[in-house]
Amino acid sequence: MRVGIVGYGNLGRGVEAAVTKAADMELAGVFTRRNPADVKTVTDVPVMAYSELENMKDDIDVLILCGGSATDLPKMTPELAANYNVIDSFDNHAHIPEHFTNVDAAASASGKVGIISCGWDPGYFSLARIFADSALPEGESYTFWGRGVSQGHSDAIRRIEGVLDARQYTVPVEAALDKVRAGEHPVFTARDMHLRECYVVAAEGADKAAIEEAIKTMPDYFEPYDTTVEFITQEELNEKHSGLPHGGSVIRSGSTGFDGEYNNTVEFSLNLDSNPFFTSSILVAAARAAYRMNQEGQSGARTLFDVPPAYLSHQSREELLAHML
Amino acid sequence: MRVGIVGYGNLGRGVEAAVTKAADMELAGVFTRRNPADVKTVTDVPVMAYSELENMKDDIDVLILCGGSATDLPKMTPELAANYNVIDSFDNHAHIPEHFTNVDAAASASGKVGIISCGWDPGYFSLARIFADSALPEGESYTFWGRGVSQGHSDAIRRIEGVLDARQYTVPVEAALDKVRAGEHPVFTARDMHLRECYVVAAEGADKAAIEEAIKTMPDYFEPYDTTVEFITQEELNEKHSGLPHGGSVIRSGSTGFDGEYNNTVEFSLNLDSNPFFTSSILVAAARAAYRMNQEGQSGARTLFDVPPAYLSHQSREELLAHML
Repeated sequence: MRVGIVGYGNLGRGVEAAVTKAADMELAGVFTRRNPADVKTVTDVPVMAYSELENMKDDIDVLILCGGSATDLPKMTPELAANYNVIDSFDNHAHIPEHFTNVDAAASASGKVGIISCGWDPGYFSLARIFADSALPEGESYTFWGRGVSQGHSDAIRRIEGVLDARQYTVPVEAALDKVRAGEHPVFTARDMHLRECYVVAAEGADKAAIEEAIKTMPDYFEPYDTTVEFITQEELNEKHSGLPHGGSVIRSGSTGFDGEYNNTVEFSLNLDSNPFFTSSILVAAARAAYRMNQEGQSGARTLFDVPPAYLSHQSREELLAHML
Repeated sequence: MRVGIVGYGNLGRGVEAAVTKAADMELAGVFTRRNPADVKTVTDVPVMAYSELENMKDDIDVLILCGGSATDLPKMTPELAANYNVIDSFDNHAHIPEHFTNVDAAASASGKVGIISCGWDPGYFSLARIFADSALPEGESYTFWGRGVSQGHSDAIRRIEGVLDARQYTVPVEAALDKVRAGEHPVFTARDMHLRECYVVAAEGADKAAIEEAIKTMPDYFEPYDTTVEFITQEELNEKHSGLPHGGSVIRSGSTGFDGEYNNTVEFSLNLDSNPFFTSSILVAAARAAYRMNQEGQSGARTLFDVPPAYLSHQSREELLAHML
C-alpha cells in the first residue's frame, strides 16, 4: 500500500513515523504547499509540491491529509477525493455533517473512499461513545479531556498583549470523574468538568495582573472555567512544557434489566505522551481500511462508524480470530 | 425487526429485557428444549418448543442463541444458521476458529448472517484489543477480569465433597494494574494478575480444612492463583453474594515516534452489576447489525471485528454524525 502525506507538521511527521513501521505500507512522498526544498523529512522521504498530486494518481493508493480543520481540510479533502482515497482528522464537530456531504459527493463521483474525522476525538472516542450507547441505550455519556495541552487555548493566550509564550493544560475535575464512575448521572456545567491551567511567559515590564485578568475573563475559552495562571520564564516553559501530551476518558453509565435494576459503567481512557503522534497512528490504520474498502468496490465518504474494525488491523483474519477475539 | 430467543436462562431473560426496550425490535417468541408449559417469561412473550423453529422462518428476522458454549452452541448455531440470521456469545476462545468455520459453512449456504462471540469477552473486550493494537502496533496488551463472579469456578467448588454452595470472585491484583497503567510492560504469571476469593457453605460436620485444601490445590482452577477461602452460612451467601457482577479492563501500552520515544496507554474498562444482562445487551445490538448486513446482501459467519459500528446502533446516520462522532 503506497501512502502519500499531505502537509508536514507534527501530524505529518507522526504519519511518517507510523508508516515507516507498518510492514504493509510504503511512503510515496510528502506533498507540501511550501517550497519543497525547504522541507526536510526525518526518514528522507521525497518532498514534492502539492501541485504534483495532479500527476501521481497511479503511484499512490491512499493520501493522508495532515492539514488543519479550520481552513485546510474543508477544501482539501473534497478536492483530493476527486482522485485519491483520502483520510483526514477533521475535528470541527459542528461542521462534520457538512464536511461529510462534500467529501461524499467528490468520492462517490471518483469511485474513491474518503474516511473523515479519524483522530481520537472525533475518532476513537466516537467509537467508545457508539459502542457504549449501543450496549446501554438507557444511560448518560460523558467525555473528559486531559490532562493535556490544548493548542487552541495556548494560541489564544499568546495573542494577549504582553505575552511572549504560553501553554494551557485542560484538566478534568477529579470529583466529577468520581461521580460519573460511581454511576451517578450528574448534570454538569463546563466548570464542573474541567479546569484550565495556564503557564505564561510575559514580556519584560508587562502588566501581569492585566494579562491574568485578560485570560480569566476571555469568553468561551476561559471565562466558563476555573482557570489558574502562573508566570514562568521561557526557559522553564521550554524545559517543562515543550511536549504535547493529552488524553481523557469517555464514560457511560447506564442500566440494564426489566426495571433498570442493574447499573453498569463503561470507560475508555487514553493517556498520550504525544497527542499528534497518536492521532497519526489512527490516521495510518484508517488508511489501511480505506484502501481495503476501495479495493472491494466501495466508494464515498465514511467515518470510523462505517469501518469494520478488522480493516484497521495489520493482522490477518486468522490471527485476529485466534489471538485477538 | 422480529427477534426470537433460543434458550431461557439469565441470558435469555436479559435479551427479553433489552429487546422490550428497543424501539426498532419486537419479540417473536422464546424457544426452549424444555416443556414450553414449564417456562414463564417475564413479559408474557409466547414460549414455544425448539422444534417449532422449523416452521417460523418467515416470522423471525434474527435468532439470539442463549445457550452455553460447552455443548449447546457448537451444534445449535450452525444448525439454526441454515435457516435464520443468528447471534451467539460463544466464549470458548480455543475453539472459536472451528466454530466460525462451521457457522460460516451453514450461513453461506443459506444466505444468512451469523455473528458469533458477541459478549464482552469475547466481544467488546476483543474490540478494545483490536482498536488499541491497530493504533499502537508496538506495545503490549493485558486483560484483567473482575472483580466479578466466575460461574465456572463457583461450580468447580460446588463439586467438592461436603460443599453445599459456593461463590467465587475473580479479583485483579491492584499492583499489577498499576504497573500496566504506568506504561511498564511486565511479564506476568497468572498469580501476578488475579486473586481468587471463595465463599463456601459447608455441610454440617464437613471437614473444612480438607475442603479448603481441595480448593487451593485444584489444578488450573485455583492452584496457579493466590486463593482465599471463607466459610459462611447459606443465609449469608444468599444475602451478600446472590448477584452476578463482573467487569474488568483491557489495557494496552505502546509507543509512537520514530524511536518509540512517546509512551501511550489505552484502557477500556467495564463495571457491571449483572454480567449476563450486559452480555444480552450486546447480543441485541449485534442482532440489529446481523439483520442490516443480511438486508444488504451479506451472508456467512461474522464476528464483531467485521461489523461497521454504526450497524449496532439504534441511532440514525444523521444522529450519529451530529451527536456521536
